[in-house]
Amino acid sequence: MITFGVIGYGYWGPNIVRNFMGIDDVTVCSIADKNPDALKRASKACPGVELTDDYTAITGSPDIDAVAIVTPVSMHFELAKEALENGKHVFVEKPFTATAEQAEQLIELAEKNKLRIMVDHTFIFTGAVRKIKEIIDTGELGDIYYFDSMRVNLGLFQHDVNVIWDLAPHDLAIMDYLIPEKPVAVSATGAAHFNHGMENIAFLTVYFPNNIIAHINVNWLSPVKVRTTLLCGQKKMLVWNDLEPADKIKIYDKGVDINSTEGVYNLLVSYRSGDMWAPKVDQTEALKLEVQHFIDCINNNNGGPNANDGYAGLSVIKMLEASNRSLQSRGCVVEL
Amino acid sequence: MITFGVIGYGYWGPNIVRNFMGIDDVTVCSIADKNPDALKRASKACPGVELTDDYTAITGSPDIDAVAIVTPVSMHFELAKEALENGKHVFVEKPFTATAEQAEQLIELAEKNKLRIMVDHTFIFTGAVRKIKEIIDTGELGDIYYFDSMRVNLGLFQHDVNVIWDLAPHDLAIMDYLIPEKPVAVSATGAAHFNHGMENIAFLTVYFPNNIIAHINVNWLSPVKVRTTLLCGQKKMLVWNDLEPADKIKIYDKGVDINSTEGVYNLLVSYRSGDMWAPKVDQTEALKLEVQHFIDCINNNNGGPNANDGYAGLSVIKMLEASNRSLQSRGCVVEL
Amino acid sequence: MITFGVIGYGYWGPNIVRNFMGIDDVTVCSIADKNPDALKRASKACPGVELTDDYTAITGSPDIDAVAIVTPVSMHFELAKEALENGKHVFVEKPFTATAEQAEQLIELAEKNKLRIMVDHTFIFTGAVRKIKEIIDTGELGDIYYFDSMRVNLGLFQHDVNVIWDLAPHDLAIMDYLIPEKPVAVSATGAAHFNHGMENIAFLTVYFPNNIIAHINVNWLSPVKVRTTLLCGQKKMLVWNDLEPADKIKIYDKGVDINSTEGVYNLLVSYRSGDMWAPKVDQTEALKLEVQHFIDCINNNNGGPNANDGYAGLSVIKMLEASNRSLQSRGCVVEL
Amino acid sequence: MITFGVIGYGYWGPNIVRNFMGIDDVTVCSIADKNPDALKRASKACPGVELTDDYTAITGSPDIDAVAIVTPVSMHFELAKEALENGKHVFVEKPFTATAEQAEQLIELAEKNKLRIMVDHTFIFTGAVRKIKEIIDTGELGDIYYFDSMRVNLGLFQHDVNVIWDLAPHDLAIMDYLIPEKPVAVSATGAAHFNHGMENIAFLTVYFPNNIIAHINVNWLSPVKVRTTLLCGQKKMLVWNDLEPADKIKIYDKGVDINSTEGVYNLLVSYRSGDMWAPKVDQTEALKLEVQHFIDCINNNNGGPNANDGYAGLSVIKMLEASNRSLQSRGCVVEL
Repeated sequence: MITFGVIGYGYWGPNIVRNFMGIDDVTVCSIADKNPDALKRASKACPGVELTDDYTAITGSPDIDAVAIVTPVSMHFELAKEALENGKHVFVEKPFTATAEQAEQLIELAEKNKLRIMVDHTFIFTGAVRKIKEIIDTGELGDIYYFDSMRVNLGLFQHDVNVIWDLAPHDLAIMDYLIPEKPVAVSATGAAHFNHGMENIAFLTVYFPNNIIAHINVNWLSPVKVRTTLLCGQKKMLVWNDLEPADKIKIYDKGVDINSTEGVYNLLVSYRSGDMWAPKVDQTEALKLEVQHFIDCINNNNGGPNANDGYAGLSVIKMLEASNRSLQSRGCVVEL
Repeated sequence: MITFGVIGYGYWGPNIVRNFMGIDDVTVCSIADKNPDALKRASKACPGVELTDDYTAITGSPDIDAVAIVTPVSMHFELAKEALENGKHVFVEKPFTATAEQAEQLIELAEKNKLRIMVDHTFIFTGAVRKIKEIIDTGELGDIYYFDSMRVNLGLFQHDVNVIWDLAPHDLAIMDYLIPEKPVAVSATGAAHFNHGMENIAFLTVYFPNNIIAHINVNWLSPVKVRTTLLCGQKKMLVWNDLEPADKIKIYDKGVDINSTEGVYNLLVSYRSGDMWAPKVDQTEALKLEVQHFIDCINNNNGGPNANDGYAGLSVIKMLEASNRSLQSRGCVVEL
Repeated sequence: MITFGVIGYGYWGPNIVRNFMGIDDVTVCSIADKNPDALKRASKACPGVELTDDYTAITGSPDIDAVAIVTPVSMHFELAKEALENGKHVFVEKPFTATAEQAEQLIELAEKNKLRIMVDHTFIFTGAVRKIKEIIDTGELGDIYYFDSMRVNLGLFQHDVNVIWDLAPHDLAIMDYLIPEKPVAVSATGAAHFNHGMENIAFLTVYFPNNIIAHINVNWLSPVKVRTTLLCGQKKMLVWNDLEPADKIKIYDKGVDINSTEGVYNLLVSYRSGDMWAPKVDQTEALKLEVQHFIDCINNNNGGPNANDGYAGLSVIKMLEASNRSLQSRGCVVEL
Repeated sequence: MITFGVIGYGYWGPNIVRNFMGIDDVTVCSIADKNPDALKRASKACPGVELTDDYTAITGSPDIDAVAIVTPVSMHFELAKEALENGKHVFVEKPFTATAEQAEQLIELAEKNKLRIMVDHTFIFTGAVRKIKEIIDTGELGDIYYFDSMRVNLGLFQHDVNVIWDLAPHDLAIMDYLIPEKPVAVSATGAAHFNHGMENIAFLTVYFPNNIIAHINVNWLSPVKVRTTLLCGQKKMLVWNDLEPADKIKIYDKGVDINSTEGVYNLLVSYRSGDMWAPKVDQTEALKLEVQHFIDCINNNNGGPNANDGYAGLSVIKMLEASNRSLQSRGCVVEL
């Protein structure tokens, strides 16, 4: 039996609690939040769980094996550090930390103490992303050309981070998971339409080796909700529309074949257009699979790399940091 | 009666010819193309029109009042210059010229010779764009925050220009027409997946004063066709989906109101979400209105500025030139 | 405080329980179901509520003021009758009863005992239907011409009723609520593709005075889910697509004006096509409003007619009965 | 070389002329229409073709081999009869004739004179319908359960026929082509909202052996355009949305398997839900293929049955006649 404490019971915390509670050999024994309203909600939803407004009651408790940190990002480092120092495994909300340096310290500390640290990159546990990964791995798409993602709606303005830090971690984690190459540079542009200087609309380009390119369009101020990713390979092309209730993923037998033996002006482009195919996508709740995965890793003392381990979190934070620097120069490329 | 010669009878030329022919006091007397197949098509479609493979037969003819240039962009400058020097009004396909300097020379020449020069920015004559302009002018959207456009499909690879020069002139012309401010800087990223070094996917950010920002996503290698523009104002937001057969424009009574009297952490954001409205859009063929407009300008000797005059063409070329420079540095901002 | 017993805890029962529990002055004290698995689920979800497999423990309990009957339709009459005879208000799942005669007996019994009986026509409490009703009442659509509804998907085959009894009660209740005239006749066609003789696809036409016509297409065996209603009036037309996450209702300023002063062959038809408008729709859970309405009626001892009272339930049952007779003759009209 | 005369140059006539003209060994030598405006349009579009307002100039001309009749249905019989009696092959617009008796006479006359008579059931030559036929013929869908088609929009009110005669011939011809069984009975309901008594909205059910059922929803008074057909088989299900620019046909690996060895209440229904597949659909203009097919039949003196021969036209007319009788009794079934 693994005993859990959860710090933070705001928007996402209840989902974390519900899913950890759903696992057979896990107990959630304690929930902490500074906000009395949050604790009130927790007391209704989780009768019998200990409630506290003191985070150290969780990070320091001798009865707790693992901690889930579901607070604003500015508190992630301090809380995770304390928990790791006290011998607890840690599950941290995305984005992992406020800086890459903090992420590196946490990874080091976890390794030293032989503890698991994992970042809540929920999307890579969705049926859609797992299916796309599977399709890429079979080679059906061929070499990847680009990844182009749009994640916009009339969203909640965050006070402490801009729209890239809020929304792009989803896309960056997915991109990292799907594209076999490592990103090498970032260019970001955007605008802040209100006086606190935090971008509410932004556009991120990520460069990879071999001309692979990724682009992410994030926006808190859109009249319509869009969650669409284009993923184009040499052989086939894929569209993932996460808002479709059915047929979220469509694979098009479309593309161009280029024979350019005689130089630019004799370029022979032939266009292919064939059938489309929409594979069935598993509907299991992603967070359920993700927390089960965390528990499995703890139980198996599996020290190997994982799709959402500290290094995966670190990779996203490096791109976020680079995007901030690029934003300041209105798009100048920042090497990773 | 205005007598017209048309140079270039490839993909778009037939539409130009058909629309000029449709105007009462216009005659198309001559069509030139180097390609014998093009002339063969022209002979079938336009019995009675003189055909030639010699462009100077048109630019130099004493019987011709006006010339439409529908060739690849590399030839625009030379042909337009010759026509203007021979006293002919000129209608040029987009993009206007290969360089801003060429555009400036043509504008100067036309003004000196009291001739009209116009660029085929067809989209600003569509019912959709005219309606959006009308809506913006009434103030219904409030101050503009951003313009975000996506124009992608499995498109024809051009040999002489990249995807920005091919597709973005549409969006840049529309953007210039709709946004009252003047663009001040450009950042562009993209990738060329084939060995001729021309980008087939690219992302363009255009900066304006007052935090207005525009973004344009163009792509010749997309499995699905998308032609969507988000246009967000302080009061309302607009979505234009040009692929919708009906209800192309939707105006959302949505947005956020921000009261930030007490600093970032006391930011009070209130969200508005009301009705949606889709105005009826005029279905008249845009090119028909555009060529009629060109003829009206010639007839009225109207020397004032026009939405698609040489200066409008020049503005687009300046942004295209800047985008090329920015692409070379992988996104560094280029002032206009 | 009103004390409730709920009979039936299958697919829909938990929603009923949750919503009654959510009302301040209501207690759900007892849940009955013959199925031990259902009771097990109830014990987890509703700790503290008494559980039983004996329905008479609820219909006969002196401590219970009102009963919700959420069982298969074949048991509605007997259970409702017992509850009413024991002085309890009754909330019955749709369809109200298995026969019109049963419905009439229950209405009479409730009136005699001054008790409320209500049928769970949830849809008429949705934001969409309430908004459509409001629009019709303002006269914006003009006189109604037709109501055409499609409700199909790969649905659960019911064992005891055909697809009309399962799905059409939604549409019939909505239709009754929206169309001011009373239906006069029914024609139904359909087919049963499996050997138990229950139609799994069926088409229902309902005739009204003044040439108003309604049509309902219900189907358990469709590859795609459709929930769309066309509602056409003399002045404007409305489309309600319940699967749209936003903009569920669209009102089109479209139609025809006919001047036929000189007979058929000189009929002058002029077509109108104007703006489209999508009003904001309230998102409150319909069942929450409905159960609150039931409680209000009990508290106010409000004896007047209600949109989902016994008479509303009876009207639907009469049409269902007529549809069964019409199905047997493959479409012959049955007067109501 | 086959010489053609075309009678009727209204809405559809120009398409017929253009397509016959496009065939190498066909000449359109003459066009007839009573309406001077129609002849004026013809003179512009077809310089060199003889024009007349006298139909007998075509049906009686010794220089004409074949006649296309593109007039209102009331004139089909007389014109086709005259043409056949004068030794001409006949291509008739749908619906074939005003009565089944007329259709039978024309078939007999054509056979006696060894002439071809064909009905313009354009849709069965579309890439979509040909692909669906191919899919059915491979057995991929399994035995057909139902065909459910919706064809509605704000359409032109016809003066001489109701909406079933105007729109349903498309669906009935497609249905006849796709479903291997022969229809046995019809039930039709509908309403006429204007004073000439012609239904502008109607619903048609067609019964086949083996519980196969078809349903057709036609409507001239819909705010939105819908052209969708559901086709469900024992193994797979198909949706054809003719308004989709791409992916018009989608095949769902979905369905139910029913084991009912122990009677109704022990019915075991298992639901299947797998991948979706959208085959590429040929984009060739259907009318082009159809007129080529007509010419091929003439040239090959091919006397065998064809998908759109007189018998195919007759089958549709029988169902239309039956639907009229059923409409009069508000839905009573009419045997075919």
